[in-house]
Amino acid sequence: MRSVAVIGIGKTAFGAFADRDLRSLAVEAVENAMRDAAVAPKQVEAFYLGNFAGPSFVGQNHLAPYVGMAAGFEGIPCTRFEDACASSGSAFFHAWQSVAAGIYDVVVAAGVEKMTSQSTPRVAEILAGAGDMAGEGRAGATFPALFAMIARRHMHQFGTTREQLASVAVKNHANGAKNPLAHMRKVISLEQALAGKPIAEPLTVYDCSLISDGAAAVVIVPLDRAARYTSRFAKVLAVTQTSDHVALDRKADITFFPAVKAAGEKAYKLAGIGPQQIDVAELHDCFTIAEIIASEDLGFTPKGQGGPFAASGATAITGQIPINTSGGLKAKGHPVGATGVGQICDIVIQLRGDAGERQVAKHKIGLAQNLGGSGATCVVTILEAA
Amino acid sequence: MRSVAVIGIGKTAFGAFADRDLRSLAVEAVENAMRDAAVAPKQVEAFYLGNFAGPSFVGQNHLAPYVGMAAGFEGIPCTRFEDACASSGSAFFHAWQSVAAGIYDVVVAAGVEKMTSQSTPRVAEILAGAGDMAGEGRAGATFPALFAMIARRHMHQFGTTREQLASVAVKNHANGAKNPLAHMRKVISLEQALAGKPIAEPLTVYDCSLISDGAAAVVIVPLDRAARYTSRFAKVLAVTQTSDHVALDRKADITFFPAVKAAGEKAYKLAGIGPQQIDVAELHDCFTIAEIIASEDLGFTPKGQGGPFAASGATAITGQIPINTSGGLKAKGHPVGATGVGQICDIVIQLRGDAGERQVAKHKIGLAQNLGGSGATCVVTILEAA
Repeated sequence: MRSVAVIGIGKTAFGAFADRDLRSLAVEAVENAMRDAAVAPKQVEAFYLGNFAGPSFVGQNHLAPYVGMAAGFEGIPCTRFEDACASSGSAFFHAWQSVAAGIYDVVVAAGVEKMTSQSTPRVAEILAGAGDMAGEGRAGATFPALFAMIARRHMHQFGTTREQLASVAVKNHANGAKNPLAHMRKVISLEQALAGKPIAEPLTVYDCSLISDGAAAVVIVPLDRAARYTSRFAKVLAVTQTSDHVALDRKADITFFPAVKAAGEKAYKLAGIGPQQIDVAELHDCFTIAEIIASEDLGFTPKGQGGPFAASGATAITGQIPINTSGGLKAKGHPVGATGVGQICDIVIQLRGDAGERQVAKHKIGLAQNLGGSGATCVVTILEAA
Repeated sequence: MRSVAVIGIGKTAFGAFADRDLRSLAVEAVENAMRDAAVAPKQVEAFYLGNFAGPSFVGQNHLAPYVGMAAGFEGIPCTRFEDACASSGSAFFHAWQSVAAGIYDVVVAAGVEKMTSQSTPRVAEILAGAGDMAGEGRAGATFPALFAMIARRHMHQFGTTREQLASVAVKNHANGAKNPLAHMRKVISLEQALAGKPIAEPLTVYDCSLISDGAAAVVIVPLDRAARYTSRFAKVLAVTQTSDHVALDRKADITFFPAVKAAGEKAYKLAGIGPQQIDVAELHDCFTIAEIIASEDLGFTPKGQGGPFAASGATAITGQIPINTSGGLKAKGHPVGATGVGQICDIVIQLRGDAGERQVAKHKIGLAQNLGGSGATCVVTILEAA
């Protein structure tokens, strides 16, 4: 397997864009990434597109050639990847494999979701399709309810508090306020977070990620060719994709995600490093409790200590391991299918030293973790600055 | 790239099964394929699942781990591929790439669709999502209408007749009647086909494929390991995936599909053979005109001659190039996401000499062609008997 590099990144702003359609968002991100990489559409050999629920939100399926042809690709394999909220993480994993294995030399991986649409009133039901509809869905257990149960159990078992959950929201809102592409650029106080409208006890509206439109894309090539395109590439040290049961009731212990632990352990092994070498991370904070658990599953703090760890400031931009400097899904926004590749773009921005007000001091190695459903899919990516 | 072999195939019956859900169909096919290959779930290193519209038909998304865990896989990458009606063709293409490139040694590629559901009354709209919803869909041009336009143009330009279209239906119904797993096992006469209820002029109900439930799966390994598992493997000579515009009005000439021509030419080149070496083929007859055009695009007959070629008997089981001996999408059924891998299973059945009443005399090399939308995706696979 060859080493691979990310040579171009492209993102749209994340937000609620009444005047934009799915394709225009995706094409904007892909074109931005190709421009950043100085790659023309004709050089691209395959297109990997992550999207969770385009058919449900906007009625359009067959999205990969639909987007790909509009981005200027001609005749190349254009494929849509769906693994719930890890759809574009999975697209990136397969794109990376194809370049690492020598199948292609220049590929684009992207993700897109257009969640504000005529179907937005059905958003909880559409998102519930990432879980077990015959069981959880039929019982009315939408995702906030599932993660509320996870939070309750974590609180019961480890003494995690509502204040600790809220501290994740406060940090991510503070970071998002510094990100010009974030959906919600609003600083909040701990008191505000705690007083948020209840969604599913103990989660308030400030514990939940946003319903966003947006797209993200990257261009990847073999590492030994990266310097021909740019000096600002990032080396891909590892990408791993793992799976687990879709239904939460099939898990013996809901205070951690076996798929995240496995993806992290494999990624660290592939990269030849441990969690202590990670300088900056984007974790999948679909809910505040998810960031806390991911910080444990990925070894940034011991099991059960994610709550105090978050509240201590260790995960702030100036902390020991800055987490979600982009604002995370909480404040940057969570256009489901775009999130995985979006996280990778945000890590590359940090590795390049381009993060402006939210730039971390040490930025040699970064990690992105993309979760599907309540832990049935996980993709972990580790990147190193050129 | 290593040579690859299909060592196991598994299919469910195709039909309208009120008492079966999507997962049980997919698991049945995957288990059949693993049993056929004498492979245990724990040996499988990655799972590639094609599905077009599970979320729309049955409300369940995140289908790859949903099916994969139920089939006994543990922790491995489970990914859903969506490329309209070529969804499982695309899953097979990526699965084949992964084994050919040395990433994995044992993988399962499958496809599934559960089309009879509470959402079946919306089937034309759901299928239209494989086309351009903002243009064709808004104008009310569902797939029968699009292929009717294609048929009209082919008739105008080459003199193709309604009788020639109907001859494809008559042949595929005759073949399907001999296939115990076919959805519709009913011989029809040319008169019946011509007198069928009009759907979109010039297409009658007998020119259109079926709304079916079903699943299909294959197990693939490197060729040099195939004999360890079975003597009944099939060698994969080539798999190619190509793309084109989703909207029909972006095509300069609608009497052929550039993506099919390109996928065929690349596949012949990879396999080192020409169309005259193909002994048996499964072509994507979503409509009778599609089989006629595919027989031209893949070089079985010159451009414009597909109509007389079909009517001549050349594509019958006893003809020069037997096409759709399974009954095709027309009679075997078209559970959209299952069709691509289902065609590959049907070719392997012929190559093994297991096709019973519909067995072709010469069965060394077979070809499967899987089309997405009105030609925006095409996957061509060429297989050779062990």
